[in-house]
Amino acid sequence: MDAKAVVLLSGGVDSATTAAIARAQGFEIHALTFQYGQRHKAEVRAAGDVARTVRAAQHVIQTIDLRAFGGSALTDAIEVPKSASVHGIGGGIPITYVPARNTIFLAFALAYAEVTGASDIFIGVNAVDYSGYPDCRPAFIAAFQRLADVATKAGVTGASIKIHAPLIDMSKSEIIREGTRLGVDFSITHSCYDPAPDGLACGRCDSCLLRLQGFFDAGLNDPIAYAQTPSGPEA
Amino acid sequence: MDAKAVVLLSGGVDSATTAAIARAQGFEIHALTFQYGQRHKAEVRAAGDVARTVRAAQHVIQTIDLRAFGGSALTDAIEVPKSASVHGIGGGIPITYVPARNTIFLAFALAYAEVTGASDIFIGVNAVDYSGYPDCRPAFIAAFQRLADVATKAGVTGASIKIHAPLIDMSKSEIIREGTRLGVDFSITHSCYDPAPDGLACGRCDSCLLRLQGFFDAGLNDPIAYAQTPSGPEA
Repeated sequence: MDAKAVVLLSGGVDSATTAAIARAQGFEIHALTFQYGQRHKAEVRAAGDVARTVRAAQHVIQTIDLRAFGGSALTDAIEVPKSASVHGIGGGIPITYVPARNTIFLAFALAYAEVTGASDIFIGVNAVDYSGYPDCRPAFIAAFQRLADVATKAGVTGASIKIHAPLIDMSKSEIIREGTRLGVDFSITHSCYDPAPDGLACGRCDSCLLRLQGFFDAGLNDPIAYAQTPSGPEA
Repeated sequence: MDAKAVVLLSGGVDSATTAAIARAQGFEIHALTFQYGQRHKAEVRAAGDVARTVRAAQHVIQTIDLRAFGGSALTDAIEVPKSASVHGIGGGIPITYVPARNTIFLAFALAYAEVTGASDIFIGVNAVDYSGYPDCRPAFIAAFQRLADVATKAGVTGASIKIHAPLIDMSKSEIIREGTRLGVDFSITHSCYDPAPDGLACGRCDSCLLRLQGFFDAGLNDPIAYAQTPSGPEA
């Protein structure tokens, strides 16, 4: 029987590539997706599609209410910022930062791993393109590993649940190349923070711009449709 | 203006005493309670009563679905074990252990603290009477503190959110004496894992037995009513 891994799956480029990496390493995938007051459900649908392509044994959707605390453009009813270019990203902590989000996600993943008997957890955080997010840094992953070592039954018995962040040092274009090499179908992924009513990506938010620049830098075409002609770096 | 503290409030003896300690230290209380598929809502009601007695500035109820993962008597539809005595507690990890529960609770508390500007978090974990729970040990709290130091904006800017576990080395009777000294009204607290339909505590589950023995050892009367004459240690 394959070893089990819990994979955090948002339905975007990074988590789809992370799931493909876990699958390529031989793990049986137990996918975990959060629905947390995004203004769009498109990414939860995309996560389901990605879970099917990696033949996930199980896919749990966990609904949590981060709006109860407020504090971020992705969960509040305020305007998602539109950047003129992705070069606006990286100066300080972005307004789209959701407080303690990855701490909460990994905490649930730890519970899921413990219940399902998974020995490993995969998370697609990335310190290169998300340098402004405190919980996307290697120091955060290392600290969560030390927490996991003492927080669970496995920690008490001497075993441990291993946290993998295989994308942490990769640029977006490197992630897209690696995903492509592993056969990820990026046409089913969703990245946009602010999609049109018909579900099409806006092509203008930070997340769309990072994605477009990543495909451009990788020398590949982004297979998804956009609501408008994207104002990518090549335009 | 008082410094703000997020206090995890279950409505039991331990968290009520913890809230009173935070209040006595001068903090403005921001209470956080979880509703996670318990078979009874009595403890959420009790948490609201306790929040009022410490004049909490805010009380957030966060609903989470730990049943999606399964794995514990407190969240699954299986029988809560009845001990002949509290001496049955402590041999290994109890069946009532909820995987990664305190990791999840503290992760949400961290998000709440970051959003509300709280500098401190209080949790009423106790390593003496809950020695079988991996996430009630001092090593767990220390590891979570190190995680909090890098997981938040405060961690990036050099400030930090401090995790307090003031009960960690106290016995149940010491907790009850300290709560009494601080004026906690234990008549509004709720401990039972398996209350009767009318809300009365069963007097037989591990949690009732720990509570009853705690009051007995403290030389105090437990002010709550029980569904049956409790089979406490004095009986």
